[in-house]
Amino acid sequence: MIVLFTDFGLAGPYTGQMKAVLLREAPGVPIVDLFADAPMRDPRASAYLLAAYAAWFPAGAIFLAVVDPGVGGARPAMALEADGRWFVGPGNGLFEIVRRRAASSRIIEITWRPTALSASFHGRDLFAPVAAMLARGDAVPGETRAQGFAAEPGWPDDLPEIVYVDRYGNAMTGLRADRLPAGAALACGGRRIARVRTFGDVQPGAPLWYANSNGLAEIAVNRGRADHALALAIGSPVAVVT
Amino acid sequence: MIVLFTDFGLAGPYTGQMKAVLLREAPGVPIVDLFADAPMRDPRASAYLLAAYAAWFPAGAIFLAVVDPGVGGARPAMALEADGRWFVGPGNGLFEIVRRRAASSRIIEITWRPTALSASFHGRDLFAPVAAMLARGDAVPGETRAQGFAAEPGWPDDLPEIVYVDRYGNAMTGLRADRLPAGAALACGGRRIARVRTFGDVQPGAPLWYANSNGLAEIAVNRGRADHALALAIGSPVAVVT
Amino acid sequence: MIVLFTDFGLAGPYTGQMKAVLLREAPGVPIVDLFADAPMRDPRASAYLLAAYAAWFPAGAIFLAVVDPGVGGARPAMALEADGRWFVGPGNGLFEIVRRRAASSRIIEITWRPTALSASFHGRDLFAPVAAMLARGDAVPGETRAQGFAAEPGWPDDLPEIVYVDRYGNAMTGLRADRLPAGAALACGGRRIARVRTFGDVQPGAPLWYANSNGLAEIAVNRGRADHALALAIGSPVAVVT
Repeated sequence: MIVLFTDFGLAGPYTGQMKAVLLREAPGVPIVDLFADAPMRDPRASAYLLAAYAAWFPAGAIFLAVVDPGVGGARPAMALEADGRWFVGPGNGLFEIVRRRAASSRIIEITWRPTALSASFHGRDLFAPVAAMLARGDAVPGETRAQGFAAEPGWPDDLPEIVYVDRYGNAMTGLRADRLPAGAALACGGRRIARVRTFGDVQPGAPLWYANSNGLAEIAVNRGRADHALALAIGSPVAVVT
Repeated sequence: MIVLFTDFGLAGPYTGQMKAVLLREAPGVPIVDLFADAPMRDPRASAYLLAAYAAWFPAGAIFLAVVDPGVGGARPAMALEADGRWFVGPGNGLFEIVRRRAASSRIIEITWRPTALSASFHGRDLFAPVAAMLARGDAVPGETRAQGFAAEPGWPDDLPEIVYVDRYGNAMTGLRADRLPAGAALACGGRRIARVRTFGDVQPGAPLWYANSNGLAEIAVNRGRADHALALAIGSPVAVVT
Repeated sequence: MIVLFTDFGLAGPYTGQMKAVLLREAPGVPIVDLFADAPMRDPRASAYLLAAYAAWFPAGAIFLAVVDPGVGGARPAMALEADGRWFVGPGNGLFEIVRRRAASSRIIEITWRPTALSASFHGRDLFAPVAAMLARGDAVPGETRAQGFAAEPGWPDDLPEIVYVDRYGNAMTGLRADRLPAGAALACGGRRIARVRTFGDVQPGAPLWYANSNGLAEIAVNRGRADHALALAIGSPVAVVT
């Protein structure tokens, strides 16, 4: 299974062309759109989101992940094997949190280049063909690098910021819920918010936080929109209050 | 064929994870995205939309339908067989109109639970596996209930409200066009609107209503947006004027 | 491979029902969503976008392309074979630029009609079945027409206007980059904009134009939104300055 994680959107031409490459070069391999609205041009916020959601997929899944504001510049092309899952995309920190949380990992710099490589669409021209090679069982055409390659040592292990707002207005943090102290509240938008199990545990219109279905601490409002009620967007800081 | 009807959106993680479950547990079964923008958190409006659109699909289709503001609470999990089509989702009224219009139907309360059931994502953890069981030809793991289970007796047979606004700004009502009196006009947004066959039957900029391609009475503006011109949104009332 | 190019959106019911027809009538044929947000109700702008993006696909691809504000009216139904690719959709100019750029082409007016043809959704009822016939290897059920059929002689070969704005705010023109004079600048939104190879060649926040990955001249702002910064939308004029 090839899993797509991008900031490309679905309606426009980018995801479709990338899938056309995968269908041609790895026919029969199922493709899943995980995120097409990852934090735009923001590999840092995306890295925490990807790490939380990739963990739900079984070993063997191949993530074609592209959040790549520096496309066409000097950032390397990268493949990461982490606990049996593969990640193909730009070496700009996007895979840093996946790598850091993995029990075992291997970093490869992709040195192969296609005959025709556009300056602005490596997802289609470079990363999709490599993901297809992996799906066919071929080796990644590149060189193994030390663990330090493309690392972002200044990034925390969990990010006390909003990393995604879904279409209901729920705001995901980059914090793993099971790493927070028991009874911890979250503070954001001038409010102190207590943890509950699910939406209906508070009154309609009241804020809450809970462990979402992929393990992230998520801020919501029962039958309302947390993004509007608490003025939250990607990058908004969140404090852990014990 | 498994048909998805949700308020999850396509770009974020919900539809993708649900499809990943279907691809794993019912490999080779085609999946169609019918609506990913069903009326948000609104099982009542969604029920009329689902009934109109499901009727277009042949017997044997399996609808995985999730508009579920009470997820994690007390509402039951439900499967409905109606005129040879299956519907799997929350027992919150979402299937009420389908059931009411069916010549024959059977309601099953899903009693099976997966090993890991999140509080907030039954679409992925509970309903998708059951839809996959049906697609594989297995029985629904549950108990048959009387027709009254999860019924909403106060809901009308046709809903004189807007239930969906499409991306052209056309506004669908919950009224079946062929149940309206011949010559009936619709009144909404302070305007009386006559029925025509198609857009071009009125001048550009003029409002019209017509029987849409799935049989619902739909309000549009030729080469314009009815939602803006007539201030229509999901829930806006519509009067039938004879 | 069947490639979809429409202004239908993905989340609502139109693309899903069209795919349901394709899956039933041409099972096993891969379907790619190229554009679901082509210029709305605008066959002229769409024609330049389609011509640029179709050229990337190999011969044999079947484009099911529907931007059809006159659906239900007098415009013909059309199939075009152009350099080995097929295009099925409304005869309203949408295929004019593809045809004009093709070394060899053949126009067929589709005379077949399905038993049930809605007034407003020929994509599902008429064009999808014909695309499926082509995918199965059948002939188009219609009559060959002269090249002049459905031509739009007043349309230029390249369109000096914005024809698409992507989700990053990048604005594509209807101009092929390789047809512009060397060193040409583009003028729009009161600014004169120079050509570069890729985003990072200018400072963050500065505008640029470049040949996009499908050959169109595209206006962008490094790490910003060109649509906002330069007040660009579909239809905005662009001047070539040499």
